[in-house]
Amino acid sequence: MEYQQLTKDTIKDYVMQYPSAAEALGGAKEIAIEEIGDGNLNYVYRLRNAAAHNKSVIVKQAVPYLRMAGEDWPLSRNRMDFEIRALQFYNELVPSFVPKIYHADEDMSVIIMQDLRDHNVIRYRMIEGEVFPRIGEDVGKFLAETLFRTSGFGMDSLERRRLMQKFNLNDELCKLTEEFIFTFPYMEHDSNYDNPKTSDYARQTIRQDREYKLRVLKFKELFLTKADALLHADLHTGSLMGNTDETYVIDMEFAYFGPFGFDVGKIMANFFMAFTSHYYHSDDATYQGWLMEEAFKIWDRFESGFLKLWGEQERSAMLEVGMLSDEELAAYKKSFMKRLLQETVGFCACSLARRTLGIAGVPDIRKIEDEDLRSTLEITNLKLSQKLMMSYDTIETVGQFRDIVEQFYTDTNLSYMEKS
Amino acid sequence: MEYQQLTKDTIKDYVMQYPSAAEALGGAKEIAIEEIGDGNLNYVYRLRNAAAHNKSVIVKQAVPYLRMAGEDWPLSRNRMDFEIRALQFYNELVPSFVPKIYHADEDMSVIIMQDLRDHNVIRYRMIEGEVFPRIGEDVGKFLAETLFRTSGFGMDSLERRRLMQKFNLNDELCKLTEEFIFTFPYMEHDSNYDNPKTSDYARQTIRQDREYKLRVLKFKELFLTKADALLHADLHTGSLMGNTDETYVIDMEFAYFGPFGFDVGKIMANFFMAFTSHYYHSDDATYQGWLMEEAFKIWDRFESGFLKLWGEQERSAMLEVGMLSDEELAAYKKSFMKRLLQETVGFCACSLARRTLGIAGVPDIRKIEDEDLRSTLEITNLKLSQKLMMSYDTIETVGQFRDIVEQFYTDTNLSYMEKS
Repeated sequence: MEYQQLTKDTIKDYVMQYPSAAEALGGAKEIAIEEIGDGNLNYVYRLRNAAAHNKSVIVKQAVPYLRMAGEDWPLSRNRMDFEIRALQFYNELVPSFVPKIYHADEDMSVIIMQDLRDHNVIRYRMIEGEVFPRIGEDVGKFLAETLFRTSGFGMDSLERRRLMQKFNLNDELCKLTEEFIFTFPYMEHDSNYDNPKTSDYARQTIRQDREYKLRVLKFKELFLTKADALLHADLHTGSLMGNTDETYVIDMEFAYFGPFGFDVGKIMANFFMAFTSHYYHSDDATYQGWLMEEAFKIWDRFESGFLKLWGEQERSAMLEVGMLSDEELAAYKKSFMKRLLQETVGFCACSLARRTLGIAGVPDIRKIEDEDLRSTLEITNLKLSQKLMMSYDTIETVGQFRDIVEQFYTDTNLSYMEKS
Repeated sequence: MEYQQLTKDTIKDYVMQYPSAAEALGGAKEIAIEEIGDGNLNYVYRLRNAAAHNKSVIVKQAVPYLRMAGEDWPLSRNRMDFEIRALQFYNELVPSFVPKIYHADEDMSVIIMQDLRDHNVIRYRMIEGEVFPRIGEDVGKFLAETLFRTSGFGMDSLERRRLMQKFNLNDELCKLTEEFIFTFPYMEHDSNYDNPKTSDYARQTIRQDREYKLRVLKFKELFLTKADALLHADLHTGSLMGNTDETYVIDMEFAYFGPFGFDVGKIMANFFMAFTSHYYHSDDATYQGWLMEEAFKIWDRFESGFLKLWGEQERSAMLEVGMLSDEELAAYKKSFMKRLLQETVGFCACSLARRTLGIAGVPDIRKIEDEDLRSTLEITNLKLSQKLMMSYDTIETVGQFRDIVEQFYTDTNLSYMEKS
């Protein structure tokens, strides 16, 4: 079908022509249409059976420009191709963690998918202090499955390159990441956020710290060149929806083949920023304690899941039966996971800096009105970024990583803030 | 044009329909047709004007199987797509180093190209002890241009991913490399070469040396995942043709986006293996001295050329003006080139082992009839591989690399061999 932008007038007819979408809407005659979502890039609608509120679908469509900036900022619609391909792939691989697809159409840049009615965007509930008992476990499992199964350890060489080919041209969104995560925050740039004390701190420290910046460039180089596995590539707490029983991963338009540690480090960084923000949102350490547990549960569950899958895989693009003895293989896995951990820490450090200094902050902190309080938390995140970036290559175990983070927060001597 | 395999009966009519090919043949009525080439993968013909021997063209066509093994060993013809794309790209980028194209056709898996009549395959002339005064200089320059210009330092991010997309599906030849360079030589495998003393040495040393094998796997991982630049990916002395004035690079069907050090390390390894072979082919150290000079001239000229191009490039996918001060940029380049050197040494070590233990040996040594003499040289190459693999990460400068290689040959105490 040739591309046309759906409107409230045309969307119902478009959706109802697809049997599984019509069925999800209970074949309704009367449909309530609501535009939802924060609308940075795309249009997102909820269509609901006016007579039965548990019958609904989500329709997501890309437009050929950056929606938040308008038609003067062109951005290829092809970003939706990659979201469609990733969501279809994940529906096969990890169906319990992603919305079901009722219909997807690359020409129309549209997906009609399951409405996660009983789930909430986790970032906003975390700001409120809500506990999601399964979050660390589920995210770790999602990462283990998606990263292992699309890596050279989980796939045959030919199969892997063919999958890679489907994602390689996600070039515009890769470029956004290269610039907004790995470049602009570390220099003076018009796109950066400006809170005077925070900006001053950045100017006096990381923007003139040669070693810190060279390490950032090392991770930028990994992002640009290292095709370990199919990444979600925008995995933060705003890309998660959940409740006490389930966790869903959404918004995979950034999907591409990149370095393992980018997905893992980014989501962990978002837990640390939530932790920092709760010096403001909480009155004591209870919720922070839970956040710290879950952040490291992500790593633990990811690592054990990755190694379990590896144990079940006899041969792959990377490993041939007979090249390594059992002891040699065990040593290889150990050194491999250590390196993956170190790369996770480095990418975590980059995420902390970009979400603090770059255009896209975390609402956990950016929405705090008091500039001074906000900048205290922002500078805390920057210091954690510095600490992690300067020590990532000395970290041998996840226990050391956790010790560094916990000691860091102890040393800040931050107290719980009075709300103004 | 739909694929059909060209024969001596059909090739003339096929070639003469393309004006630039017909012109290269001087519009001849009578054409001499000769099948040339070692014929491992493809068919290669020389067509020559029967009346004017300086009017000729080369026709190279892929068949849908591995020619040396026959139709029972299918191998996709698409390998020729990548040779065509690489040769076209290099004709734009480094026209003085590659044959001109008269016609190329992916459907027919065929290239009609310049006949390098006045040039010889360098490997065979090196065995004879011929000096090519420009070889190190030219190969270094070729590497600097091709690797820098297709890297994240020499290209914009979008442009780079679009070029990558053209080569990503060279999957069957990548798999051959993964297996034959990075896997089979380090284990017992039917495809391996067998010379008893050499095989015994391998069994008692590298095939049970855990650290050596884990390092090989690190380089295999880089080959599989790290897309630094468009590589030739099969750059050895048999892929070079030259004379005293010019050097040409041919046979680029393995071209894909991979790690910088693979191209550089592989060609240097071929110079070292030629050096080793001249304990047999020469009666004194004169020619070896020249080989050693040229091997390191490749690195020197590559490094200086890469850095010169980098100095002229204001911005790129990797670097934005304003992120680094001049001193910071200088420090970054220094640490980057050190890492590239170390990766070169590691890939060089892999090449030495695979060309000694794997199916595809170097004729410089494999063609020596005396099994004992041959195995002395083979074991020398394996020891050099071990030496380089175990020390690559301690090497800070190319001077140290050269010292290690020269000291290694001194320590072998090899004498020039009497021919039997």
